[in-house]
Amino acid sequence: MTDFRTDGAAALDWAARYLERVDELPVLAQVKPGELTARLPQSPPEQAEPFADVLRDLDELLVPALTNWQHPRFFAYFAVTASEPGILAELLAATLNQVAILWRASPASTELELRVVDWVRQLLGLPEGWHGHIEDTASTSTLAALIAARHVTGRNVVVCSEHAHSSVEKDARMLGMELRKAPADEELRLRVPDDLSDVAAVVATVGTTSFASVDPVRELAEAAHAAGAWLHVDAAYAGPSWICEEERWSQDGVELADSLVVNPHKWLLVPMDCSLLWTARPDEFREAFSLTPEYLRTADDAYALADYGPALGRRFRSLKLWAVLRCYGAEGLRAILREHVRLAELFASWVEESPDWELVAPQRFSLVVFRRNGSDEHNERLLERVNASGEIFISHTRLGGRYVLRLAIGNARTTEADVRRAWEVLNR
Amino acid sequence: MTDFRTDGAAALDWAARYLERVDELPVLAQVKPGELTARLPQSPPEQAEPFADVLRDLDELLVPALTNWQHPRFFAYFAVTASEPGILAELLAATLNQVAILWRASPASTELELRVVDWVRQLLGLPEGWHGHIEDTASTSTLAALIAARHVTGRNVVVCSEHAHSSVEKDARMLGMELRKAPADEELRLRVPDDLSDVAAVVATVGTTSFASVDPVRELAEAAHAAGAWLHVDAAYAGPSWICEEERWSQDGVELADSLVVNPHKWLLVPMDCSLLWTARPDEFREAFSLTPEYLRTADDAYALADYGPALGRRFRSLKLWAVLRCYGAEGLRAILREHVRLAELFASWVEESPDWELVAPQRFSLVVFRRNGSDEHNERLLERVNASGEIFISHTRLGGRYVLRLAIGNARTTEADVRRAWEVLNR
Repeated sequence: MTDFRTDGAAALDWAARYLERVDELPVLAQVKPGELTARLPQSPPEQAEPFADVLRDLDELLVPALTNWQHPRFFAYFAVTASEPGILAELLAATLNQVAILWRASPASTELELRVVDWVRQLLGLPEGWHGHIEDTASTSTLAALIAARHVTGRNVVVCSEHAHSSVEKDARMLGMELRKAPADEELRLRVPDDLSDVAAVVATVGTTSFASVDPVRELAEAAHAAGAWLHVDAAYAGPSWICEEERWSQDGVELADSLVVNPHKWLLVPMDCSLLWTARPDEFREAFSLTPEYLRTADDAYALADYGPALGRRFRSLKLWAVLRCYGAEGLRAILREHVRLAELFASWVEESPDWELVAPQRFSLVVFRRNGSDEHNERLLERVNASGEIFISHTRLGGRYVLRLAIGNARTTEADVRRAWEVLNR
Repeated sequence: MTDFRTDGAAALDWAARYLERVDELPVLAQVKPGELTARLPQSPPEQAEPFADVLRDLDELLVPALTNWQHPRFFAYFAVTASEPGILAELLAATLNQVAILWRASPASTELELRVVDWVRQLLGLPEGWHGHIEDTASTSTLAALIAARHVTGRNVVVCSEHAHSSVEKDARMLGMELRKAPADEELRLRVPDDLSDVAAVVATVGTTSFASVDPVRELAEAAHAAGAWLHVDAAYAGPSWICEEERWSQDGVELADSLVVNPHKWLLVPMDCSLLWTARPDEFREAFSLTPEYLRTADDAYALADYGPALGRRFRSLKLWAVLRCYGAEGLRAILREHVRLAELFASWVEESPDWELVAPQRFSLVVFRRNGSDEHNERLLERVNASGEIFISHTRLGGRYVLRLAIGNARTTEADVRRAWEVLNR
């Protein structure tokens, strides 16, 4: 068994060294499927092994199979950051091992969660009185919102944009709800559907995964409410940008939402997992989930956060959000997000100025969607080649059938030199 | 901002001191609802604060509001342990910040997860060929199982025991499925229902939350399959005991299950959250969830674990399970669980030998269900008084309308002296 102080010092040193040298590792794992599996023992050990052996195998077996999300040249999907205060808070959360199934099981976790999620509400400029809590991912937050919407409306149809995140389709499918994907306009914004009379929920996206486009939330909210439907806003990626006044244009109409998801683990420096789910209708939302069985009933379950989502057991996730908000301050977070947006705009300007490349969607937030002149196959091979180099990692999507490339900036370590390097690699 | 090495050393020291002195703290938080909230700042800081301030507030504000799940005299709900290797693995997982949305996004997380969950399968003596992965909680694991069951059977009814965990009812409600709670026999075992012809899923429990009773899994599996229904087994709490041969009596028929949930964060020394979900029908299970949208499609998604449950983003949870299995070894884990069972049997023997107390359910695994002679009010006041003392924390349930007490042993720090102390406090 472990000597916690000695092994802890070794683990901390390992973590520090990883973060110090992560930019020397390939961004995308340079292994083939099954390669790690073949190197891992087929059966568990019968006798205890020292923790040092775990660290050794972390280096020898696991590191080569990591795609390094902490790398400053990770530009795929949405780039994220597990900042240092957030990492250390996870150490503390695991140490305390709070299982906040109800208030008395962890007053600290429950009350801190409500308070710090409200801090974020204030930072984002969202309405007072909204009830917010933490889920693991936006998939789960949206799942909970759809459950509430079906409960409140008694209807079974979900409407979202053709560019909405795949989780909306997956959530609807899991719930046995019918999904209607509605077409978007030339700016990739969901067109307001004519008839919402049988619709339980309209899902509007602020910052779509493929293009960071922004649906017309106000019009959608008004149409949804006129038809008796619920409006859920997915701002998982772009929502954190509302800490900056200049990005609040994309918040127009969000104050009319019935529920909203924003992910601090995406663009607010919090390690996975931390997805915030607010609702403007907490009583109805809670009705959809609450059971309060006898063996959990106590005199003090005014704060039962499990009554707002699928899981009963809840990790002490608010600790990392609290640590990040305090150790950066609103000012520090704004500075980092502004730099990401500046770098994305800079990259987009290079694309626009070059005769070999084109921007294929309006540049929004910290995402650039672009392609090289030439065929889809050419762009696909280009992507594979640059990712195989290990120097940068970008991803792709399709627009109007065409294969296009995405460069997303979101790691706190990313500098202008890293973005310049990406441009060089792409042009090599 | 943080100096990771300096602040990390402080955080580690804080964690070590917490674990060293946790037995001196009250087990149950001695605060009133809202007391912590009133002490937390209403708004987030504009400027960055040092990490040391977070640690100071952890001591001054949060510790008094903790219910100490790591305390050796935590006997409520199901007692759990975040062991040292598991805690340190969470530090590493947060550092690496893998977001395993698909194989290439983290080959290490994906392949290690499949391998270590299979290690647990071997330790528990479960059938070869089952597909296992990690969810956050048993609520989510059972939710996923019910989704698969509905997908496969096209039916909408769930059957479980009146003593099944509340999550089954909550899951069915979230999915819009009809729940039929069936009566149990005098040994608190679900009676096999006569007609399952319209049933999607039967949920059998091995180790119910209230009484640790064991449903007749074999008979339920045979009846379910004869009627074309899915059999899901909830062994969230008791499943880990199958690492000990002498507890395998409770596994009879589990090999016939279509899906099974076992929680290493309950009784296998892994910090929250780590719930294992196996299925014997992986292809059909996957069909219920898989979408594979364009922007995630790659050539190598043979290992897409997000296709077996609700969430897309996945934390590197296998790291802590791997660390715990290695640093204790099967042998070490067996020794700890056996000691827990021995202590529960010892406590049960004191109850049986005393004229003032009675055992109200057969003693199973590491749980004792009992009451003091006298009225419900008497037992309720007794529970409130012992919990308010801070010396021990136990919980309650109801059996046949009567208020009864539960003492659950599951913390690795718990010794015979702690159990003896509980008995003294209860008799004081």
